[in-house]
Amino acid sequence: MSELLVKGKAAKQAAKILSQATTELKNQALHAIADGLAANQSLIIEANQKDLDRARAANTSTAIMDRLALTEKRIQDMVIGLKQVIELPDPLGEVLETFNRPNGLTVNKVRVPLGVIGIIYEARPNVTVDAAALCLKTGNCAFLRGSSSALESNKTIIAIVQEALAKVGLPKESVQLLEDTSRDTSDQMLRLNQYLDVLIPRGGAGLIEHVVKNATVPVLETGSGICHIFINQDADATMAIDIAINAKTHRPGVCNAIETLLVHQEWAEKHLAHLVQALKDKGVEVRGCEKTRQLMADLSLAVEEDWSTEYLDLILAIKTVSSLEEAMDHIDQYGSGHSECIITENEKHATQFMNGIDAAAVYHNASTRFTDGFEFGFGAEIGISTQKLHARGPMGLKELTSYKYLIHGTGQTRA
Amino acid sequence: MSELLVKGKAAKQAAKILSQATTELKNQALHAIADGLAANQSLIIEANQKDLDRARAANTSTAIMDRLALTEKRIQDMVIGLKQVIELPDPLGEVLETFNRPNGLTVNKVRVPLGVIGIIYEARPNVTVDAAALCLKTGNCAFLRGSSSALESNKTIIAIVQEALAKVGLPKESVQLLEDTSRDTSDQMLRLNQYLDVLIPRGGAGLIEHVVKNATVPVLETGSGICHIFINQDADATMAIDIAINAKTHRPGVCNAIETLLVHQEWAEKHLAHLVQALKDKGVEVRGCEKTRQLMADLSLAVEEDWSTEYLDLILAIKTVSSLEEAMDHIDQYGSGHSECIITENEKHATQFMNGIDAAAVYHNASTRFTDGFEFGFGAEIGISTQKLHARGPMGLKELTSYKYLIHGTGQTRA
Repeated sequence: MSELLVKGKAAKQAAKILSQATTELKNQALHAIADGLAANQSLIIEANQKDLDRARAANTSTAIMDRLALTEKRIQDMVIGLKQVIELPDPLGEVLETFNRPNGLTVNKVRVPLGVIGIIYEARPNVTVDAAALCLKTGNCAFLRGSSSALESNKTIIAIVQEALAKVGLPKESVQLLEDTSRDTSDQMLRLNQYLDVLIPRGGAGLIEHVVKNATVPVLETGSGICHIFINQDADATMAIDIAINAKTHRPGVCNAIETLLVHQEWAEKHLAHLVQALKDKGVEVRGCEKTRQLMADLSLAVEEDWSTEYLDLILAIKTVSSLEEAMDHIDQYGSGHSECIITENEKHATQFMNGIDAAAVYHNASTRFTDGFEFGFGAEIGISTQKLHARGPMGLKELTSYKYLIHGTGQTRA
Repeated sequence: MSELLVKGKAAKQAAKILSQATTELKNQALHAIADGLAANQSLIIEANQKDLDRARAANTSTAIMDRLALTEKRIQDMVIGLKQVIELPDPLGEVLETFNRPNGLTVNKVRVPLGVIGIIYEARPNVTVDAAALCLKTGNCAFLRGSSSALESNKTIIAIVQEALAKVGLPKESVQLLEDTSRDTSDQMLRLNQYLDVLIPRGGAGLIEHVVKNATVPVLETGSGICHIFINQDADATMAIDIAINAKTHRPGVCNAIETLLVHQEWAEKHLAHLVQALKDKGVEVRGCEKTRQLMADLSLAVEEDWSTEYLDLILAIKTVSSLEEAMDHIDQYGSGHSECIITENEKHATQFMNGIDAAAVYHNASTRFTDGFEFGFGAEIGISTQKLHARGPMGLKELTSYKYLIHGTGQTRA
């Protein structure tokens, strides 16, 4: 039997035991993992060095080399992350609803784990610990498929994780790494409905699209963010500029950064120059539509392609619109359903925008950068969902659970 | 542009308007549909006659002819169904959670429609009205793909539905029927992520498997039921036999009927003959494992294939087990995660079973036939989910919704 099938089957079996583990035991496992990582820092860095050497030899870009690299600081951050997960409440067992039926049946809807979660991710080896911790805390087995470029790092981390699991008496197969990173095996994993309950791809748009297109296992799509801010005609200029700068420049490479700014014509006539200057001062390349360039001729032209591009960079496209409706239509057409914002002092317009826009997070007078599990107070985040099934927006521990109905009777039969 | 793309695009546009419709307007639409169906009874029966004639000419089985047939009584039942949906509360707009963050942001998690729901179903034309009503009530557009065998009936029903929608001022594209029922177009529909938010297949195992295997649009899998009852050693004999009879014979063709009965050896030694006689009196063909046949030699042998077969018929396989654990292991291996039951007076065993079994509905001392949206008190049912993402078990109105986060700020930016 292939590695995939052997480990898949073992995961399914481990899931049965892990789903019944007490909160205390799961927290002991997380503590043991934290201790193991701290104690084996040099071992991890050594393994990581092999990955880095290989990546360097393959002329890997500096950006990817950076994601791949594990330093003492990064290992300490993983340990801190584990301790944070330990502190979070265990969502399992919560009774979500109770119905007492006229026939005397009591139906309890109870929170349970999803089962085995397949996680497919790219270069960052810290995701290995991060994902394993969130799965463990929620009673789910983690079936990890990392990047081949991080294989040595991941293998070393997984060995430490599995040793910690065994130490506290949990099945070591609660967290497993698929070492065969061939495309063929990866594609088989996407169709492993027999053993996997859910797939979560974590990475760039290409990876996510590949998973969505090829998986038969249900997918939690964490996705791309083509996010917009609409500055309404009456928006407070200082607030609007502060929020736009924050949403674009605070961390341009992440999904909740904005890519397009929609500006009401009347506001633009008064404040566009100031806004553009502030953006340029922060190093942003500003592109404008025809109407925007009528106000500021020196901007380069934003073409059709700009509206559907996730720059993930210090580039911003500005479109001048003549109404709230035009802004909303633009977002309907080009938005990815992630995070959208209106800046206005007009409550009626704010309500119209917030109700009408179909996105995971819709903001009034705040930066889109807050779409984040930690910022929402979840204490953790496995990703940000851009689909509408199961979970939308930031996914924390609860989003890694399902439920089942427990029905207590006294001999009821259906008439 | 093909019919699929034209109607898909129109659905997406209609969804925007429908999502904002008031409860009153949606109920008016449902009333108008009910009136339209009642007023056009003879038109519907006439169209249905064409489908029946075609089916008869194609030597269609009596069972399928029966599902296809619309009578005055069945049309009245559709009208009654619509009136029931009108009476149900509108789940939209409910604030599911509110978080007030330390930075002053208020985050409201609000219930919203899924958007456009693709429903793929088989012969029964009453599903057309049923599915349309549940989608409308929850602010979702229904994009229906029925069976080619019911095309004339479905077209007539849809024309009545669309006329009713137009009459109350809702977009008629809120409910659409794909008239091109070719396999090729159907498969394109499964990958129409651009316009469809969710797919719900309703029909036999073959249809569901085809959709799960080929769809890139997220699927709500409504599924097959290989359901078990385990009769523990101490089970009350009368209760156990009553429940087993009910779960097998009340309606053998549905997914919450049982296919296998697991009987503890000690109980079997005392009561098996009585149980089998009661089953036979109801016309059930009983098959037994080797151990069962040691107690009742005249039973036909249940072979390996029996344990994984959804008979959907008056056939029952009995397996005699020597422990609760053996019963649970059997369910783990062969159950489809639908409905499972233990009959016992031992609370500890009941708890072990209910916690340990991974299924949508787990029963103690009650018939599995209660896994049903109406029996659970949901007032409606679009299907019974056997997956763990999004919804599990009976799906009513709430299960046809998603949520979004509405965030109110006063200029907050991320530090």
